[in-house]
Amino acid sequence: MTDNSSPTAASRRSFLRTAAFAGAGLATGAAQAQTPKPDPAITEVPDWTRYLGPGVQNAPYGSPSKFEKHIIRQDVEWLTASRESSVNFTPLHALDGVITPSGLCFERHHSGVAEVDPAKHRLMIHGLVDKPLVFTMEDLKRFPGRINHAYFLECAANSGMEWRGAQLNGCQFTHGMIHNVWYHGLPLKTLLDEAGVKPKGKWLLAEGADSAAMTRSIPMEKALKDCMVAWGMNGEALRPEQGYPLRLVVPGWEGNMWVKWLRRLEVGDEPWEQREETSKYTDLLADGRARRFTWIMDAKSVVTSPSPQAPLVQKGPNVITGIAWSGRGRMQRIDVTIDGGKNWTTARLDGPNMPLSMVRFYLDFDWDGREMLIQSRAMDETGYVQPTKEELRKVRGVNSIYHNNGIQTWLVRSNGETENVEIS
Amino acid sequence: MTDNSSPTAASRRSFLRTAAFAGAGLATGAAQAQTPKPDPAITEVPDWTRYLGPGVQNAPYGSPSKFEKHIIRQDVEWLTASRESSVNFTPLHALDGVITPSGLCFERHHSGVAEVDPAKHRLMIHGLVDKPLVFTMEDLKRFPGRINHAYFLECAANSGMEWRGAQLNGCQFTHGMIHNVWYHGLPLKTLLDEAGVKPKGKWLLAEGADSAAMTRSIPMEKALKDCMVAWGMNGEALRPEQGYPLRLVVPGWEGNMWVKWLRRLEVGDEPWEQREETSKYTDLLADGRARRFTWIMDAKSVVTSPSPQAPLVQKGPNVITGIAWSGRGRMQRIDVTIDGGKNWTTARLDGPNMPLSMVRFYLDFDWDGREMLIQSRAMDETGYVQPTKEELRKVRGVNSIYHNNGIQTWLVRSNGETENVEIS
Repeated sequence: MTDNSSPTAASRRSFLRTAAFAGAGLATGAAQAQTPKPDPAITEVPDWTRYLGPGVQNAPYGSPSKFEKHIIRQDVEWLTASRESSVNFTPLHALDGVITPSGLCFERHHSGVAEVDPAKHRLMIHGLVDKPLVFTMEDLKRFPGRINHAYFLECAANSGMEWRGAQLNGCQFTHGMIHNVWYHGLPLKTLLDEAGVKPKGKWLLAEGADSAAMTRSIPMEKALKDCMVAWGMNGEALRPEQGYPLRLVVPGWEGNMWVKWLRRLEVGDEPWEQREETSKYTDLLADGRARRFTWIMDAKSVVTSPSPQAPLVQKGPNVITGIAWSGRGRMQRIDVTIDGGKNWTTARLDGPNMPLSMVRFYLDFDWDGREMLIQSRAMDETGYVQPTKEELRKVRGVNSIYHNNGIQTWLVRSNGETENVEIS
Repeated sequence: MTDNSSPTAASRRSFLRTAAFAGAGLATGAAQAQTPKPDPAITEVPDWTRYLGPGVQNAPYGSPSKFEKHIIRQDVEWLTASRESSVNFTPLHALDGVITPSGLCFERHHSGVAEVDPAKHRLMIHGLVDKPLVFTMEDLKRFPGRINHAYFLECAANSGMEWRGAQLNGCQFTHGMIHNVWYHGLPLKTLLDEAGVKPKGKWLLAEGADSAAMTRSIPMEKALKDCMVAWGMNGEALRPEQGYPLRLVVPGWEGNMWVKWLRRLEVGDEPWEQREETSKYTDLLADGRARRFTWIMDAKSVVTSPSPQAPLVQKGPNVITGIAWSGRGRMQRIDVTIDGGKNWTTARLDGPNMPLSMVRFYLDFDWDGREMLIQSRAMDETGYVQPTKEELRKVRGVNSIYHNNGIQTWLVRSNGETENVEIS
């Protein structure tokens, strides 16, 4: 935590200097001073200015431009046994701001996407309650106390391949099991209060309506604190891959607990020890013991550009940008280094800084064309500082799959190409 | 401004009372106490629990559930001469929170959707500047000082048909020429500073690359205050209908000024008096004179549910919800009436309350099945209170098309059906 001076003033001066491409030769029709040939983008009238474009259409649900077709969710075919239990990763390298577009939100399924008819969907609350309840979707939507929150959802296995060294070449694949969206629904507490949790009711089992019947145990304290039952995301209905028509929202905790296609909440007096909290979603240590109930996602960050899928294309002014998040509260500060950790500069945050939600950071800088080792390091409001991968391995060994929040390193070569590397 | 007491406690008690449908007969398999017949949604295992769903796919850009196919942008065929100069309205009745999904954002074109190749797109800044500039998209994206803001964009003609009385039956059509999204880009001031505006440069002409070459004059004071040049919306690239790859953002001002497919910014010493600011986007008064340069969108609100497209379906607990916005700053308060203005209750705001951005309000209430006249009334931080349509007509006559921010009335009939009406 050394040099916090802002590079912005210097960058601006330099932009003026290097931005000779812009304008100097304009009067003669040459867009770039270095290029005497006229820029056809200026001298020729393009088709979209010459001809009428398509008009509005009936039944439209809009889509991205045809020039953005490469910005998509992608899977890694060898990662899982079948497509029904696989992952599509968010293209983080191409996004900005803090809210993930619904069409690009990562997806992870245990038995494919359940295509649930909302008219036939029910949410049951039972077990150690005064009054078991069954809700239709209509019942939930007319229940008092609706709320809206933006939260990050990170799969516990995000960056899991990186435990054993740099593996995947692109932040879409190293960090793309995360999204950050608005949720619309009810506080879970509201529904539990309606049912009346008995004094012995210290745990909650959440069950999905998919054919995996995904089940997780959640401590009642968390359930009453800030969990939500949500039917909406980013303004509209949940997407099928995110649990349409109803999902559990467990802010700051690992994504596997955010049960999708939520159909059942059972109140009990101890955890259920389901498959997804015993053989899976526990952390095998070097000595053979396993950590369990490691629910909270610790502070983490990643530079999304430059990155292997978003290389640098030009010397001079450039923007380093990335995202950070913490399951323990609000983000305090993100530092960035371009020399592998010798010098750190505090990045500028821009956009909302909401607790348990992504933040966006920027560092404007001048690139002189030298190789760089770029890293970011997050610190949350509790004072927790994102560790290096080596620091994590010392404590947790290399058997783990889950909860890798280590600092990511990108090597930017002098030609701008960028790689996933590890430095010791 | 009378009764501000919260109806929430009463509603909650009533929900318990009327919510006998939920749970009482659960042990015997009957979901609804009123219905002795078992609910097949509980007693039968649905297909989505019995069979694997589809797995993740290559090249996916996600879409809404097939059960949400009716939630779309829609046009009104008779409204304009051609589809290329028409409007698709946002389905406000089906949305929640404050951010409009990009696929559902209203669109209005003057010569169709320009399908611009970003590699061939340029932004020129010229006129009364020290140094004319031409930027490629890559240049803009590596320029220092990138920012993110959520702003509402309302067409000046939103609710225009309502000047002469209740016309369109649904808030999608009466109020749907608005969206509220995140923008990612640069402060316009940054680019103007780079070019160096000469002291005489008091106006800016913004021009689009579509075949209408849409042009509007913008006072320099506004341009330097908070305008943006944006290439991103809601986390990803702008959509074609919203000006891909570059648009002007003019916070709080009428949507027509937010020039899409932005290709040219000319600095001058007086307004250009273009078609879109003389024969259009001026307000013809009763005495034949016209108001012009009426840029700011005044405080406005509308109840989105219940509304003609979202009728009430059941007595008992229900949620009134809607949106409000003001081009003059932050929203202060929204009041709601269910008796045509005799009694007003201050609604609960939930979600972010950002200046020049939509807010979401809720009023939980018990419906006894009587006819209601529902209205909402916005007040912004300047103290400005949304007027009635009659108050507007007294000042502005009925020749106007633009800037109708009058209070909207929905008549809810005893069967729950809801209509657009006017009361005097």
